[in-house]
Amino acid sequence: MMSSSFPIVRLKPKTKPQAIRHGFPWIYDNELVVDRRTRNIEPGTIAVLQDNERNPLGLVEVNPNSRITCRMLDRNLEASIDQVWLAAKLTRAYDMRTRLYEAPFYRLIHAEADGLPGVVIDRFGDVAVIQPNAAWADRLLDALVAALIEVTGVTTVLKSGSGRARALEGLDDVSCVMVGQAPDAAVPVTMNGATYMADLMGGQKTGLFFDQRANQEFAARLCKDARVLDVFSHVGGFGLAALASGAASALCVDGSAAALSLAEDGAGASGFEARFGTRKGDAFDVLTALADEGETFDVVICDPPAFAPSKPALEKGLRAYERVARLAAPLVREGGYLGLCSCSHAADLARFRGASVRGIGRAGRQAQLIHTGYAGPDHPLMPQLAESGYLKALFFRL
Amino acid sequence: MMSSSFPIVRLKPKTKPQAIRHGFPWIYDNELVVDRRTRNIEPGTIAVLQDNERNPLGLVEVNPNSRITCRMLDRNLEASIDQVWLAAKLTRAYDMRTRLYEAPFYRLIHAEADGLPGVVIDRFGDVAVIQPNAAWADRLLDALVAALIEVTGVTTVLKSGSGRARALEGLDDVSCVMVGQAPDAAVPVTMNGATYMADLMGGQKTGLFFDQRANQEFAARLCKDARVLDVFSHVGGFGLAALASGAASALCVDGSAAALSLAEDGAGASGFEARFGTRKGDAFDVLTALADEGETFDVVICDPPAFAPSKPALEKGLRAYERVARLAAPLVREGGYLGLCSCSHAADLARFRGASVRGIGRAGRQAQLIHTGYAGPDHPLMPQLAESGYLKALFFRL
Repeated sequence: MMSSSFPIVRLKPKTKPQAIRHGFPWIYDNELVVDRRTRNIEPGTIAVLQDNERNPLGLVEVNPNSRITCRMLDRNLEASIDQVWLAAKLTRAYDMRTRLYEAPFYRLIHAEADGLPGVVIDRFGDVAVIQPNAAWADRLLDALVAALIEVTGVTTVLKSGSGRARALEGLDDVSCVMVGQAPDAAVPVTMNGATYMADLMGGQKTGLFFDQRANQEFAARLCKDARVLDVFSHVGGFGLAALASGAASALCVDGSAAALSLAEDGAGASGFEARFGTRKGDAFDVLTALADEGETFDVVICDPPAFAPSKPALEKGLRAYERVARLAAPLVREGGYLGLCSCSHAADLARFRGASVRGIGRAGRQAQLIHTGYAGPDHPLMPQLAESGYLKALFFRL
Repeated sequence: MMSSSFPIVRLKPKTKPQAIRHGFPWIYDNELVVDRRTRNIEPGTIAVLQDNERNPLGLVEVNPNSRITCRMLDRNLEASIDQVWLAAKLTRAYDMRTRLYEAPFYRLIHAEADGLPGVVIDRFGDVAVIQPNAAWADRLLDALVAALIEVTGVTTVLKSGSGRARALEGLDDVSCVMVGQAPDAAVPVTMNGATYMADLMGGQKTGLFFDQRANQEFAARLCKDARVLDVFSHVGGFGLAALASGAASALCVDGSAAALSLAEDGAGASGFEARFGTRKGDAFDVLTALADEGETFDVVICDPPAFAPSKPALEKGLRAYERVARLAAPLVREGGYLGLCSCSHAADLARFRGASVRGIGRAGRQAQLIHTGYAGPDHPLMPQLAESGYLKALFFRL
């Protein structure tokens, strides 16, 4: 399709095109001339974006149902957004992952930063899970799946419709099998020397997150011969990595029985049963109970869900992070290590660090900060959105 | 010595003691009652710090010659700051390093964060280099050396008097051998799979910095089969790590012939001669010349000296960082990687990232940010001083 046949959308007079020219990938609804014609564009349609003087800026997807009304797809107006184009983006992303990771378990596509706005693809060996969290990707899903198989050779492709992102775009929440057969059991994932079990059909609560891999690797280096407590453990991310690195024991705490069951299966598959334990319950309650029982650990790691997912939730979220730190610090032996994580967009590094240090201080402990980590390199960032790096991991020595 | 026999120094009425109580380790000259008695305290004397209501806050060293007039040594007024006390701090620091590093090459003491204000100790196998960059440590140097030998078993201890820190404290710049024999050749240092050569007697220009180890390790993961350019290479920090990780070639660029000679020796000791090259010259000139020659590389890393060591130098420093990025980016092949480092205190992460991204943009390239790294965990931070983390390393894919 020639660009001349695309619909046109235009920036408002007061919207400066510089940010877009310098690589910013989004245009918000209030930055765009939204007339009836634009409002009637079907979500996911590809259009030419112009500045207010009718200079073209590139090809964008248009979604009138989203606050992010346009997402930049290609600055080249002659580009064809088709399977070949998708395969080129996938190949580029795949090259980096195969360079970085020996085993085929990683986030293959991390949305805008990997050139596919709104699209997230995680790879678990022969299985890939796509989250097409933007309307254009929903419309081109068949081509995307075909390109994905072409580039990576995966045999099963699942579409995940869960998560907040699709709702914000006005998209359905349907999950389904696109190609191949749904795995009838949890899928083994090798990472950081351990085998994790991921229930890809069970959704977010029991899947697997790759973003903490580098932080789990760092934590594991502290864990030789250590007694380790992994709070908000999910399927055992930090605990199993610690055991792979020679920890004396790991106790995983989570509120989800399904997640702990997968953690146990992972411990079994890794040969760690004898050193592995779980405790189901509300993390705050369990932290308090362990302190009452007089327990201490050499290494304690807390990786809670996003307490401050949005700006209005920031103050409350920071108090929750402070509380985690205050309850966890007393469980760390003198000279031991405390890892505290946040996956909250709204809590930036300085604020999260401040809350953590306050909590440690209120527990009557002093700390050195020995490491600050982010999501791993299979979660790249656009430099223009770098402040939005959501995941932070702080490692303290107490 | 009982605390009652220590001199007393006191905060001014307007100086709030909260920051000190919460762990901030320094009292500046303008926060302290400086009467004739205080002015006459010999630099490095241990004193009791009181708030303005005569409540004791802890034992501090006093140095009337330094803007940082007091440094907190121990909040316990009954502490004896002696060899036993020093050995306890060293043991604690040593435990972390032996947990983290297999070979005895690391920063053992990183000043305040390791409980020994102003003191830096680097370990190179059987040799340790002490920088006693505070007056108290100069006075207690014999006890410090004895404790160091007791804890680590090193056989040679060198004192380095070089560097800006001692001048700011009004201390001499004398370097000397404290114990053992000065190494008569460069010392081999095993790190990241390579052997580096460090000339410990030649001073800063040819010694070795441990702070980049984790960033060098990350870079090396990108370097398998790659053609690598290491600019401002010093003794080959990134280049030799890349070769150890299977790089096809590494070209080290530096202005110092002595540093490049040590890099060559390191390449030889590592068995990398065939894949290793050097080019002496001003880094900006060499970057320009390589572009004129039409050279490209798979991975380019630039680790310049501090362009913005202080606030007044910030704007000029940021322009220099931008220039490095602008000159280096064209040398990276499409899809290759660019690592940019800053060891400037004054340039915080956001500013340094901004300058780097501007430079890449001016070179007409687009980038993903795949990794942000800091100094390694043998360079811990006090959380109260965490903003001062001087070293930042940004890895981009272009």
